Amino acid sequence: MPILENFENEYSSDHLQQLNEALQSGMFVQVRMMLNELPAADVAHFLESTPPKERDLLWRLINTEREGQVLQFLDDEIRNEYASNMDPAELAAATRDLDIDNQADILGDLPDRIVKEVLASMRVQDRHRIEHALGYPEDSAGGLMNTDVVTVRPLVTIEVVLRYLRMKKELPDNTDSIYVVDSEDKFIGAVKLSSLIISQPEQPVDDVLDKDIQPIPVSLPDDDVARLFERRDLISAPVIDENGKLLGRITIDDVVDVIIEDADHSLMSMAGLDENDDTFAPIVTSAKRRAIWLGINLITVMVAVAVIGVFEDTIKAVTALAILQPIVPSMGGIAGTQTLTLVIRGLSVGHISSINFRWLMLKELGVSVLNGLLWALVVGLSVYLFFSLTNEYSSSAPQLGITIAGAMIINLVVGATLGAVLPMIMTKMKIDPALSGGVVLTTVTDMVGFFSFLGLATLFFA
Amino acid sequence: MPILENFENEYSSDHLQQLNEALQSGMFVQVRMMLNELPAADVAHFLESTPPKERDLLWRLINTEREGQVLQFLDDEIRNEYASNMDPAELAAATRDLDIDNQADILGDLPDRIVKEVLASMRVQDRHRIEHALGYPEDSAGGLMNTDVVTVRPLVTIEVVLRYLRMKKELPDNTDSIYVVDSEDKFIGAVKLSSLIISQPEQPVDDVLDKDIQPIPVSLPDDDVARLFERRDLISAPVIDENGKLLGRITIDDVVDVIIEDADHSLMSMAGLDENDDTFAPIVTSAKRRAIWLGINLITVMVAVAVIGVFEDTIKAVTALAILQPIVPSMGGIAGTQTLTLVIRGLSVGHISSINFRWLMLKELGVSVLNGLLWALVVGLSVYLFFSLTNEYSSSAPQLGITIAGAMIINLVVGATLGAVLPMIMTKMKIDPALSGGVVLTTVTDMVGFFSFLGLATLFFA
Repeated sequence: MPILENFENEYSSDHLQQLNEALQSGMFVQVRMMLNELPAADVAHFLESTPPKERDLLWRLINTEREGQVLQFLDDEIRNEYASNMDPAELAAATRDLDIDNQADILGDLPDRIVKEVLASMRVQDRHRIEHALGYPEDSAGGLMNTDVVTVRPLVTIEVVLRYLRMKKELPDNTDSIYVVDSEDKFIGAVKLSSLIISQPEQPVDDVLDKDIQPIPVSLPDDDVARLFERRDLISAPVIDENGKLLGRITIDDVVDVIIEDADHSLMSMAGLDENDDTFAPIVTSAKRRAIWLGINLITVMVAVAVIGVFEDTIKAVTALAILQPIVPSMGGIAGTQTLTLVIRGLSVGHISSINFRWLMLKELGVSVLNGLLWALVVGLSVYLFFSLTNEYSSSAPQLGITIAGAMIINLVVGATLGAVLPMIMTKMKIDPALSGGVVLTTVTDMVGFFSFLGLATLFFA
Repeated sequence: MPILENFENEYSSDHLQQLNEALQSGMFVQVRMMLNELPAADVAHFLESTPPKERDLLWRLINTEREGQVLQFLDDEIRNEYASNMDPAELAAATRDLDIDNQADILGDLPDRIVKEVLASMRVQDRHRIEHALGYPEDSAGGLMNTDVVTVRPLVTIEVVLRYLRMKKELPDNTDSIYVVDSEDKFIGAVKLSSLIISQPEQPVDDVLDKDIQPIPVSLPDDDVARLFERRDLISAPVIDENGKLLGRITIDDVVDVIIEDADHSLMSMAGLDENDDTFAPIVTSAKRRAIWLGINLITVMVAVAVIGVFEDTIKAVTALAILQPIVPSMGGIAGTQTLTLVIRGLSVGHISSINFRWLMLKELGVSVLNGLLWALVVGLSVYLFFSLTNEYSSSAPQLGITIAGAMIINLVVGATLGAVLPMIMTKMKIDPALSGGVVLTTVTDMVGFFSFLGLATLFFA
């Protein structure tokens, strides 16, 4: 019975739905069959989309020889859990056939003790390769690189190269180019497979080098690698050491993972979440993680509360202030967060640098002044009109309107300035602005919002 | 004089720095030279990173024949501005050599009037190709697809194919596979270039089909295409119509753009920003756009203010309530935003579906109950202890502690439930949860926060 009946199924989540139904109705034979027939990436996706208890059951139904394949596609947290519970010899066997960078990824996150055991149960040459790969930081070109490259010398003819490749019978996955190196393995250039095919067989490979392909230094950070692939529309690129020696190659599939992870990171960090956390983590695990963020937020609110406390007597005299007090901090927080998000994203895509930052800051300041004036007018007038119609506050309506208008301008300008400056300062201090920028910003806009509003009010009403 | 001296320059932003220095010091001859020597993607990036006035100057310095190349890499807003100001005939000429999907992208965003003029100044066959490409929605497989595919028949031998390719002299960019079709152009399969190279020349191509490459239906949404490329580690994939006829192919470089845009969209929408807006847009343009978001926020704060207004008398009686009132809404907003972000991201990567949503909602509820209890205890006790030490409120300290603790639990549970449910409902209603989810959520958590806190207080103190 074909499990994937046509391509529609292949692209919709129908087969995952089928898998889920089989699981729910306890048809484990069928579940096992599907788990071992579907592409490993889909199995990993299904595990990630399944609550912990069923997930453990599914994991046990996967054939041992497939476990390595599935592991490489799993999110960090889930992968670490399963990998560290495997027998080290079994883990070594399961990951043996993976690309070297994926093997290193899996092992790199495990406790040292386990890594040692896994390495001990590998063949000597595999061990050396892995140890070498583990020597590069995971977030550098070295950590993304594979060592399975096809190399030839510059003076051989294309015919010889083609014969050599035919003899190899198999090329590494995603091979779109072969590399030309000298006798000391120094990188000379790359030749696309398509060039090999369309060129005259008697030409030396040296004649058909692809000028667009430039080698990447092994220490280049992975987000720079990603930007480079993105801008140059690369499929693969050679990696070299500081002496120009060819070490391996990076392929687009690994770069796509970096791009997705970077993007996820900004989004999730802004809510104090970690992009590698399991969506279906157990309640207690998630509750503990979130508690920290709530605790940090509580501290920042307490600061705001302390600011309000200073003006207790003013509030006691004019209760309308208590009613109006959320407006100014909220608007300042929103304006600041907009600038903050814009700058964080501009920094991450590389649009913002020290060159144009001054222009951008002045622009954001200008935007906040314009919007400050606009909303000061709108809110100030509304407050004035509303309270002049009440019995209790009609005599203080002008002061209330002016107070909130003034505070609005102050807080919007502070929010925008801070939103622009914070990410720049934090990046320089190696603090992640996506994670802590928002908290710092809203703490300040809350404080300034309450202080300016209640402070101005105190001047009027004291 | 070589402008890019070594690869270090190529990968750092050094050459953009040089370009900027040349621009600042008015060395326009050198600027023009660099603009026309650097890769088009880098020139586009430089334009995007430059304030409007200098940007216009730079654009004028770019050679006419390069403008199309640069246009295709520019962000939508900037691209539309320059493209719509070009002479239609000039635009037609500048974009003639671009991939068909990129031509369609550029034209697709322009006003109909201009598109008509541009099409009118094209050669008939180019016009037909473009009109055909414009017929597919931009955000579908059809909109991403190129029509430059190399096809062969199933029974020809590899040797014949290789001879045919050599005759063509050039293959389309990023060709990693050629496609096998029958006499009616129906897709039969794909053969990787690497298979052609390593297989025996006398085999028919039919024997070396790549089983992993499955055709993509032309109407598949672009984010599904992206997920497929990501999970299958594809470099390119054939696109077919509903009858299985081969229409074109999608390459990874266009898919990477979709991935980046989707990710940017979530991040920017959460702050009410548009990922296609120009970071360096003029002050008034930006101020107008941001004003809308601030206006929406103002309305939501006003709702919260109205809720507080209901309890004016209670606040007048116990000023401590005015001081404490930001705590509960803030904590509920944070807890809700965490769940909201988690669910939005889970939906967008495809981890969350109707199958596992119930489990996830119960989990988020569990997390919020645990955190609600924890922080209710912490805040309730702190408030009790703090106020029992004051002269004025020592007698109401227990009630204040209990009030804030009860409101905290209520609001955290509401926040989490809403954070889980909102994105599901909005997605079903075709509303973008990344854009409006946060606003709706915090409006509700503010209302519920103030209402539960001040309402409970009224029960105690009235």
